[in-house]
Amino acid sequence: MPEYSSTFSAESYFSTQPPPPSLEHDIAGVKEFVRRQKERGRNVVLVTSGGTTVPLELNVVRFLDNFSAGTRGATSAEYFLKAGYAVIFMHRQFSLQPFSRHYSHSTNPFLDFLEIELDIEGPSASVVSDEASAASQICVTPNKREALLEVLTAYKAVHAAGTLHTLTFVTVNDYLWLLRAVSQELSVLRRKAMYYLAAAVSDFFLPRQKMSEHKIQSGKGSLHIEMDQVPKILKPMVDDWTGKDGFVVSFKLETDPSLLVPKAQTSLQRYGHQVVIGNDLNRRKFEVVFISWKYALPPSSTSDGTNTTESNSPFAESWLRIDPHDHSKEIEEKIVAELVKKHEVWVAGAETL
Amino acid sequence: MPEYSSTFSAESYFSTQPPPPSLEHDIAGVKEFVRRQKERGRNVVLVTSGGTTVPLELNVVRFLDNFSAGTRGATSAEYFLKAGYAVIFMHRQFSLQPFSRHYSHSTNPFLDFLEIELDIEGPSASVVSDEASAASQICVTPNKREALLEVLTAYKAVHAAGTLHTLTFVTVNDYLWLLRAVSQELSVLRRKAMYYLAAAVSDFFLPRQKMSEHKIQSGKGSLHIEMDQVPKILKPMVDDWTGKDGFVVSFKLETDPSLLVPKAQTSLQRYGHQVVIGNDLNRRKFEVVFISWKYALPPSSTSDGTNTTESNSPFAESWLRIDPHDHSKEIEEKIVAELVKKHEVWVAGAETL
Repeated sequence: MPEYSSTFSAESYFSTQPPPPSLEHDIAGVKEFVRRQKERGRNVVLVTSGGTTVPLELNVVRFLDNFSAGTRGATSAEYFLKAGYAVIFMHRQFSLQPFSRHYSHSTNPFLDFLEIELDIEGPSASVVSDEASAASQICVTPNKREALLEVLTAYKAVHAAGTLHTLTFVTVNDYLWLLRAVSQELSVLRRKAMYYLAAAVSDFFLPRQKMSEHKIQSGKGSLHIEMDQVPKILKPMVDDWTGKDGFVVSFKLETDPSLLVPKAQTSLQRYGHQVVIGNDLNRRKFEVVFISWKYALPPSSTSDGTNTTESNSPFAESWLRIDPHDHSKEIEEKIVAELVKKHEVWVAGAETL
Repeated sequence: MPEYSSTFSAESYFSTQPPPPSLEHDIAGVKEFVRRQKERGRNVVLVTSGGTTVPLELNVVRFLDNFSAGTRGATSAEYFLKAGYAVIFMHRQFSLQPFSRHYSHSTNPFLDFLEIELDIEGPSASVVSDEASAASQICVTPNKREALLEVLTAYKAVHAAGTLHTLTFVTVNDYLWLLRAVSQELSVLRRKAMYYLAAAVSDFFLPRQKMSEHKIQSGKGSLHIEMDQVPKILKPMVDDWTGKDGFVVSFKLETDPSLLVPKAQTSLQRYGHQVVIGNDLNRRKFEVVFISWKYALPPSSTSDGTNTTESNSPFAESWLRIDPHDHSKEIEEKIVAELVKKHEVWVAGAETL
């Protein structure tokens, strides 16, 4: 066991932190899914979604979490599926998923739109007797039917076609091990693989060596938590795990608008992947900025036209917006359309090399 | 504004930390609900459920969380409703709720058991054409119907009777303000009010004065978080907010089994309420221990008979267990039955004073 170090590289991370017990089983499933998509010549996107946790104890009672309902990832996954992609949906357990996201138990509980109908004549539909229960139908109320029919039809089509594969993570450790292994599996698809990293990943963590077995007792006056930085994995991901051919899209979430574009540009420069999507926490549902390379990929026509690129800058900057008051629209529709176009160019690029 | 102090009493907490914006609206709803139940002479139980968060920034990206799916609270609420109680279900937003808890999108997604049925003759039920969609029914598949019918019937009955009132919290600050205000509203019910405190409440928090506005930047080598203790609110709750007449049940969750009974007893001694339910993290789904006062409330016959009380101890200790392999049973059924009996004695006790 290597000596404990307080600064982890990706390499020292994986050699000191234990893999999750389900890893082998999870990867066997991914391998099979990828094999099937390769046979069909389908593009595959890995969508990561939701926040990762940092447990503070081995018997987890308390943990540090990153705020993320999973809206971006779950919504985008639906549009990728609609666009004909196969999707590996790697999400935080219990966070939003494609399709079921429309029916949150808190905001749109499905029990509210089910009616009990009796198959026999006589008693009114709202009376359920013992003799009747065996012959009852439970159906969706008419005014909810149309919206649900659309979601349900898409859901069933995706299941029939086998184009959605779902994985879950909880801790940042689960996430890192899974991300590496899934990327390595997807690398066989070369340029046809996209990586859409929408998960909210912990920046800091508690190495196993620092964790205590039992619940931290709260008798003391105050609690001090000292945490180490999670190694940046975009570099090994781009340079190594994805086989250098993958189309990698990362996200930058900021609360200070003035930091958004500079930090997104810095990230793209540092890691050399394809796109950074920047979003301001308070505007993310109706506005995002695409930072990409000016010369590898020409600006697309689905952006709203404000292509502000300085002549000396290697970066292209493209803002996508929707009307914040139009609740029938989702910005992920524009995001995915833009990425599908860029990915198409990327895949075609392989043929011209 | 009082000078910043690192040790908070309940009093200094409420005078330095701001109430949640929704408090007034939430309490108006509770007031009305309690008034209606008082008219009907119904017992009311406040069930708190799920974990509280401690935001680390004002624009919340990271937060400290307490592990709790809300199973205990959501399951108990269903049994309390079944026993004829009115329930105020005060839970962590998006955690499990009574009834919908059976249909987690992850483990039992409802979209899987809906079928599209055409109202017209001809096309098979699995083919949906444009002309047909307007005349389609969406119904539950036969093999899922019976189980869902039971849940749905109970759900509709509770809604018709108006015996379930739901509130949500996210942060420990929301929780504390809400708990105090709801308890004060319930105090008008005197002994008919029960308080079932199953929520996993943060022991430590970051006072507003210590929080930064923007996302903590992860450029530094390591992250230090220094937190203050959340004031213990059981004391003001028992002595003050509940009007001294409420039947208060608290929980103790431990990972070290040897600490379970001693800590539960210490808690009951310290706060003078009615019951502490102790549970070991790894055994909580099939075993709990009730610590109560030996002489105020005689042991009930629903416990499994292992009433181990030492002659000098003022405490009664009663273990409730179910078979861990029998997945048709839920321990909350026993917990609630035991509490209903104890509460009945408590309510009757008022009439003999």
